Amino acid sequence: MARIIVEVMLKPEILDPQGQAVKNALGRLGLTGVADVRQGKRFVIDVDDEAGVDEARIDELAGSLLSNPVIEDYAWRVVADTEAGA
Amino acid sequence: MARIIVEVMLKPEILDPQGQAVKNALGRLGLTGVADVRQGKRFVIDVDDEAGVDEARIDELAGSLLSNPVIEDYAWRVVADTEAGA
Repeated sequence: MARIIVEVMLKPEILDPQGQAVKNALGRLGLTGVADVRQGKRFVIDVDDEAGVDEARIDELAGSLLSNPVIEDYAWRVVADTEAGA
Repeated sequence: MARIIVEVMLKPEILDPQGQAVKNALGRLGLTGVADVRQGKRFVIDVDDEAGVDEARIDELAGSLLSNPVIEDYAWRVVADTEAGA
């Protein structure tokens, strides 16, 4: 069993109203010094067999199904199954 | 400048229909051997001064503002500002 983590974030030049809302809320709740907040998505994909992970296919799907290449960047990595999923 | 990454995932016992939809789509698109997919959120918080990071406050806000403690688990860490944000 292998675990693949895919992280998707808006490109830096794309406005992130959700992140801005979080930034403002953090300020109101007393956390000072917050310069910027960006919100993104995270996928934890468990696959049956690490040897069978098709890296080219994973990369292709991360860049199409899991993210919108027009406005989002993605990164993915294979981690040990024991890494905390949270 | 320090960067705080907060990762929020549904608790394992909570159904994740988004993750299930992604799992089904990955199967249809030809990625075999996918046992499970969970979808979560990711916040990248840039703060002005690492020395000024109030860890207790961050933890409290991650567990209240950024996640719903009834159905979600969270994890957070401070990373070097140079770590890729994507």
